[in-house]
Amino acid sequence: MLETLQFAQQNHQNYVTELIEFLRIPSISTQTDRNDDTAKAAAWLAEAMRNAGLENVQVIKTERHPLVYADWLHAGQDTPTVLIYGHYDVQPPEPLELWESPPFDPVIRDNYIYARGAADDKGQVYIHVKAVEAYLKTAGRLPVNVKFIVEGEEEIGSRNLYHFIAENGALLSADSALVSDSAILGKGKPALVYGLRGICHIQIDITGPGRDLHSGSYGGGINNPLNVLAHIIAKLKDEDGHILIPGFYDRVRPLSDEERELLANFPLDKGAWLKETGAPTAWGEPEYSLVERLGARPTLDITGMYGGYLGEGTKTVLPSYAHAKVSMRLVPDQDPHEIVELAEKYIRSIAPPSVTVKIETADGSQASLIDRDTAPIRAASAAYEATFNHPVVFMREGGSIPIVERFESGLKLPTVLMGFGLPGDRIHSPNERFYLPNFYAGIETSIRYLDLLSRAK
Amino acid sequence: MLETLQFAQQNHQNYVTELIEFLRIPSISTQTDRNDDTAKAAAWLAEAMRNAGLENVQVIKTERHPLVYADWLHAGQDTPTVLIYGHYDVQPPEPLELWESPPFDPVIRDNYIYARGAADDKGQVYIHVKAVEAYLKTAGRLPVNVKFIVEGEEEIGSRNLYHFIAENGALLSADSALVSDSAILGKGKPALVYGLRGICHIQIDITGPGRDLHSGSYGGGINNPLNVLAHIIAKLKDEDGHILIPGFYDRVRPLSDEERELLANFPLDKGAWLKETGAPTAWGEPEYSLVERLGARPTLDITGMYGGYLGEGTKTVLPSYAHAKVSMRLVPDQDPHEIVELAEKYIRSIAPPSVTVKIETADGSQASLIDRDTAPIRAASAAYEATFNHPVVFMREGGSIPIVERFESGLKLPTVLMGFGLPGDRIHSPNERFYLPNFYAGIETSIRYLDLLSRAK
Repeated sequence: MLETLQFAQQNHQNYVTELIEFLRIPSISTQTDRNDDTAKAAAWLAEAMRNAGLENVQVIKTERHPLVYADWLHAGQDTPTVLIYGHYDVQPPEPLELWESPPFDPVIRDNYIYARGAADDKGQVYIHVKAVEAYLKTAGRLPVNVKFIVEGEEEIGSRNLYHFIAENGALLSADSALVSDSAILGKGKPALVYGLRGICHIQIDITGPGRDLHSGSYGGGINNPLNVLAHIIAKLKDEDGHILIPGFYDRVRPLSDEERELLANFPLDKGAWLKETGAPTAWGEPEYSLVERLGARPTLDITGMYGGYLGEGTKTVLPSYAHAKVSMRLVPDQDPHEIVELAEKYIRSIAPPSVTVKIETADGSQASLIDRDTAPIRAASAAYEATFNHPVVFMREGGSIPIVERFESGLKLPTVLMGFGLPGDRIHSPNERFYLPNFYAGIETSIRYLDLLSRAK
Repeated sequence: MLETLQFAQQNHQNYVTELIEFLRIPSISTQTDRNDDTAKAAAWLAEAMRNAGLENVQVIKTERHPLVYADWLHAGQDTPTVLIYGHYDVQPPEPLELWESPPFDPVIRDNYIYARGAADDKGQVYIHVKAVEAYLKTAGRLPVNVKFIVEGEEEIGSRNLYHFIAENGALLSADSALVSDSAILGKGKPALVYGLRGICHIQIDITGPGRDLHSGSYGGGINNPLNVLAHIIAKLKDEDGHILIPGFYDRVRPLSDEERELLANFPLDKGAWLKETGAPTAWGEPEYSLVERLGARPTLDITGMYGGYLGEGTKTVLPSYAHAKVSMRLVPDQDPHEIVELAEKYIRSIAPPSVTVKIETADGSQASLIDRDTAPIRAASAAYEATFNHPVVFMREGGSIPIVERFESGLKLPTVLMGFGLPGDRIHSPNERFYLPNFYAGIETSIRYLDLLSRAK
């Protein structure tokens, strides 16, 4: 393994050069005019996997964005098989004007590589491709059997990976899953995520008059869709963060005393955390601690809202349309389909007859809560500690990785969420970045993990 | 006068050709990158006035958009002087995608001319230029003394015309004012507006975190500016249309029994009116009739609102900013400066400490209520009736013409609001249009009015 680690250390520059190529592809899954780019990213990754020495590399077409599969299965039948998951799709880069360098023109500044997808998730996927390559180019073999499945729909709900698993579960059979799509606690402070929130989305489209009206001639006689939208949104969540949709909390699994204690001891530097956000104060449900609110409580956020005149100055118009995009983060055991239904029913019940309401939904996912006492988790802890020389913290992550719940309860795979991002990586935000020392440490951790996993009990 | 009317009738085609030139100039006053176009519109109008035979034509620079002045003062000292007011600036044309033909590429369809500014107010200003020209090219003289003042800031509060009047009131001295910037009741149904609402504007800019955050990693711990904005807007006006800003209604002059009776008899076809708006139902303060709500009650409307991700699909972001543009229509005796102050104070009092709030204001204006029993109003009624063969209806208009209050109480000019628009002209909306038969009838009414005014008592 030493030779493998050394090989990886000697190839840092090559790895960065390759990652830059991958990051140049604007594989934005939610925007249909980027479908050529998601296909390009999948093809690029497949080629990189072939070059790494992986076998059976396939770009698998789906109804939307392709899956990339590869494996190396010569470690022996008594040796565990690990399914490595990641995604090559990225979030939209907007608002573009806030990027200091273009989102798909990667730039290195102060040991960070800046680009959309750098940390989420291209950089982290590529870690494992390079770890596998280092083994195959030095030892000529891997200590365990490996399968890769990399998708292009993580940011939009993983619909086609769900379908693929339902129909081709056997191809992905393994003993455990490995996912690198999260962050550690800080530089040099490794963390294993054991909880992920689920997610669901609705878009509210409100129509009032058939066209934009003069706000003087019609104001007071025709209801304004923007004012109506504000009333509806104000009724979705109160000012303290309590969600007001009837039934929303019914299935929320209460936090155990043990977990509240674990979270109470979580080493969050609140001052540094707040400074990093740039917000004046923290905020949220007063009955829960900040750490609980960030990972263990459900949320409702307006992610986009628009209507009327958006230009400079004033326009005295009573607009025809108002739109809001709403995203809800879920915790065990909330069901995204049920939550969307409850939200839609509630919104229709509070919308006045002076407007018409259309509600669109997007794919959602369930939350995951992972058993912290498994052989792969123990191997991952040891691999992290050996690389970072620092003990591992267990944390709940507020974000969502839709497929993890399916790995855990569908494929019955104990899953390891071994992230290499940092809290300030600005994933989903302008100036997303990935800390290059974590990229390199990630490759070493992956090399150690595969070795430890072969001997784990 | 007969020869003058005939001359005007013979020149319809020329008038339309000229108006098309005027409408081609995108003189949008609120957008600073259109300043060249407002200057161009002022110069075009000045040239048209010179060609019409008007004298002392001047384009008067101001701090923002120029004023256009012209006169003809040879009718004799014992003959009344009328100050004709209008504006050459227009509202922004957005949303552009809803225009059937480009807003600044005028097209005639079914006797309507379609363009931004067609009815509001270029077409109506031009009526009087052509009426004056018809007199000067036939009789060689006008029956009364005439001054024109045409501004380029009506849509943004007329600030520089206010300044000009304060400093150069003598130049505009007259016996009455004539304003054509409103609509009649329907085709063939003339109407004199005796009430205009005032207006004031605020823009609310809310900042939460210093950058867009990942809605999963930070949701529940950082307040969302879009949710905050919705709560604030919901607290500005209740769902029945009552404005909740403390003190907002304090100065509202109650409607007299006489005026409530007048408005109760106003011949509004509610079915046709509603159909024209395209809204599912009428709406507003239940204690007031629709006609009262549309002209005699103050309003608060969100004219634009935006923040977060506005593109296709979903983006799981907790946005940094949220913006809303708010327009309030005022009635006598509300003061726009006081209302803006009350609104700002209230918004600051209800905004939570987890965000920062910036409030910008734009120029406002007071409401006007015109005496219906003056010699110019009687002359205007007679001129309308002679042209349209239909009695005149008196109405309150919900819109605002900022300077009218200054004409009435500042310059002590009895004012006539003699409009030629139609309710379906879509002013401030996509597909604004002006009914060409009203353009021609307007010129005839103006010719008759100037004649009747010379003999009015």
